[in-house]
Amino acid sequence: MTTEVNVAVRSDAGAAKTRKPLRVALLGFGTVGQAVARILTERDDLRDRLQLTHVFNRGIARKRVDWLSASVVWTEDFDEILESRPDVVVEVVGGVDIPYGWVRQALSQGVSVVTANKLLMAAHAPELLALAATRDARVRFEAAVAGGVPIIDAIRSGLSGDRLTRVVGILNGTCNFILSRMTDGDSMAGALGEAQRLGFAEADPTSDVDGHDAAAKLSLLAGVAFRRYLRTADIPTRSISSIDAVDFRYAKRLGGTIRQLAMAEADGSGGVEASVGPALVDETSSFARNRGAQNLVMVSGRYGGATTFSGEGAGGHPTAVAVVSDLVAISRPGSWQDPGDLVWEPGTVIAARARPYYLRFMVRDRPGIVASITSALSQSDINIDAVLQEPGFPRDRLPFVVTVEPCLATALHAAMQEVESQGFHAEPPVVMPVVPREEHAAQKQ
Amino acid sequence: MTTEVNVAVRSDAGAAKTRKPLRVALLGFGTVGQAVARILTERDDLRDRLQLTHVFNRGIARKRVDWLSASVVWTEDFDEILESRPDVVVEVVGGVDIPYGWVRQALSQGVSVVTANKLLMAAHAPELLALAATRDARVRFEAAVAGGVPIIDAIRSGLSGDRLTRVVGILNGTCNFILSRMTDGDSMAGALGEAQRLGFAEADPTSDVDGHDAAAKLSLLAGVAFRRYLRTADIPTRSISSIDAVDFRYAKRLGGTIRQLAMAEADGSGGVEASVGPALVDETSSFARNRGAQNLVMVSGRYGGATTFSGEGAGGHPTAVAVVSDLVAISRPGSWQDPGDLVWEPGTVIAARARPYYLRFMVRDRPGIVASITSALSQSDINIDAVLQEPGFPRDRLPFVVTVEPCLATALHAAMQEVESQGFHAEPPVVMPVVPREEHAAQKQ
Repeated sequence: MTTEVNVAVRSDAGAAKTRKPLRVALLGFGTVGQAVARILTERDDLRDRLQLTHVFNRGIARKRVDWLSASVVWTEDFDEILESRPDVVVEVVGGVDIPYGWVRQALSQGVSVVTANKLLMAAHAPELLALAATRDARVRFEAAVAGGVPIIDAIRSGLSGDRLTRVVGILNGTCNFILSRMTDGDSMAGALGEAQRLGFAEADPTSDVDGHDAAAKLSLLAGVAFRRYLRTADIPTRSISSIDAVDFRYAKRLGGTIRQLAMAEADGSGGVEASVGPALVDETSSFARNRGAQNLVMVSGRYGGATTFSGEGAGGHPTAVAVVSDLVAISRPGSWQDPGDLVWEPGTVIAARARPYYLRFMVRDRPGIVASITSALSQSDINIDAVLQEPGFPRDRLPFVVTVEPCLATALHAAMQEVESQGFHAEPPVVMPVVPREEHAAQKQ
Repeated sequence: MTTEVNVAVRSDAGAAKTRKPLRVALLGFGTVGQAVARILTERDDLRDRLQLTHVFNRGIARKRVDWLSASVVWTEDFDEILESRPDVVVEVVGGVDIPYGWVRQALSQGVSVVTANKLLMAAHAPELLALAATRDARVRFEAAVAGGVPIIDAIRSGLSGDRLTRVVGILNGTCNFILSRMTDGDSMAGALGEAQRLGFAEADPTSDVDGHDAAAKLSLLAGVAFRRYLRTADIPTRSISSIDAVDFRYAKRLGGTIRQLAMAEADGSGGVEASVGPALVDETSSFARNRGAQNLVMVSGRYGGATTFSGEGAGGHPTAVAVVSDLVAISRPGSWQDPGDLVWEPGTVIAARARPYYLRFMVRDRPGIVASITSALSQSDINIDAVLQEPGFPRDRLPFVVTVEPCLATALHAAMQEVESQGFHAEPPVVMPVVPREEHAAQKQ
């Protein structure tokens, strides 16, 4: 039983039958590139749509494998790729400047691009999307955000009937792995070491821990969801590196735990409140329940409420599934992009609206510290919600926590500058937003 | 800044600019229909793509509202709709036979259809998809499964690079509301009454509670994920109505809770293991954490692992977002469906593979009951994992639980027939599969 002759729609009638497979060139044959090649080789149902023609890698000789079709050309010469006139180039090399040049060249020739490169796209998305539009080419980058979670396609397609207002996500698997280990009692150093041992974390985990990796991904999600381009450098980040085991003890007392959250909320006129950093989340929330290296994204719209997506954030095969899904999308005859998906207007990162905060101090104890802190807060019109001090800590490194009612970040910043100028700190205070229960929309009953 | 002239791709070059909006006729002006009309009215960015031309309802005079464009024709005559030559008919009426006739008529004339009607699609999807294919029309039904969760589009598009093997979901919000209230200590009757008071449950909740509603949705998910058509009547269902407060007490002792799960797993050659009914799930799983009327679907593939989607399962606005997203998809020039999306080969529901089970007995106590049960189980080569009996129950309605190691449903069925023939039961035993921890894929660490 076949309906191949029947399936094409409108102006593409008949095209499905006569179309040749798209010629796909693969740039990069590391973990992800190999997994892409593996799927394209194994999925015989895709063979009449996608044909891998070239594999590019530095030192290609040592990369060659015997399970790829003999017709595949192995090369370390990018010009050879372009001269072969591929339909799509898959970029899974990494880095920014070199792939930027390649992707520009490909698009300029009308060759579509699928990339897993968040840094490239976060740096150049508006230009690359516009270039693609002028050349009848496509740029897709599902794999650049939350690997195995098809969040970009979901926003553009499955949720296109809504008007999205908010995206909150756990976008960095390494941080989530570390923080969920710490929830279970591990130390920061121990959890980071374990993440490195398991291959989740780089030898230099700065980009993960300090939030720059998640900020690049958040920039892409804001682009797709709000069609506003935020420069990664404009998104305020706070590191999780100052989070200590004691913070999990206090978080638990407050009915929560700690996760690195990337948050973006559109004001409807080009402003986007955006930030990345540790946040106190309710222990019953889907954020708290998201454990290990899993990613999770919650998208909220004016009409449909919150929808949550979770799955593998990285790894060769989940990332390769995202790449192949993009290839399948491009292989559809008459495949088309919404005008709005190709134009990201410049967006402005605006100051956070009033939020409750968690403030943790580590002090050399002496009389008057709490009075000094509460006085600085009250001078900025910030109301204190609770002061918590667990017993059993040494007087020269005494941790305690102040939670405050919703206040503007600017007011809090002013108060904390005053507090930090005092001499009683054994280490700098930790400041985290508290995500109130009602914002854990997927948990409402 | 605009790139409208640049955005059309390939054979549709220029179409975006010259295209007229799709003429949309709305069948049904209840909660969902009104929400669809509301979104189409408020989303001015969709105005050049989608134009609501007709609203059809019985007793249309009392349905008329003043916030819709004066150009909209209000009618209770379906022929008038078809004579107006709409591009798309939105069917949000409900029922099966009457909308089936309408949808067939529309498709036969080449008019595309968007429907929220799970019973219609579960009964007639293969025929309607094939009919649409022969007429260059589309049938989309995102709203028919898990309202606000864009799971159908995600499977067809964002996860198209994977080869899906398994779909497990909480697809009935009423049951989930009831079971999560019972987790918190409510009785079945109390929870059902509350669901009815809040409008989640029908006056006659049979279709929800007994699993027929979820089975129809599971049939559609299996069609989309595996391209195999399962008749709803072939999917075995077990009711949640026999679940008692005591089951939550035992579930808790076993580290879990109870949810109505719809499960489908493809064997790769046309067989699909499928079932709907109460299941014991790990208390840390996303199933257990899914509370209230929320829906949740976990999709697993050979390459990408598990991806989980959750959100509002019903409600006017979330369902309307799904309808409008389908309309937006159809409005894309050159919009195209994969051949495979239009052909669901007949599938066969196959017997469940070996699973662990939870068996709860309610007996009039007398000597030898446990021996009788364990003997029947061992005669079917079923190994007992644990026998649990909580104190404090009357001897004439004494509940206790036996958990067994993985066994085939057929073997269990034989053993339970033997057990049920005994005279000591105060009510029929409850049998539930146990979903092992490793199947809660999204929770792995």
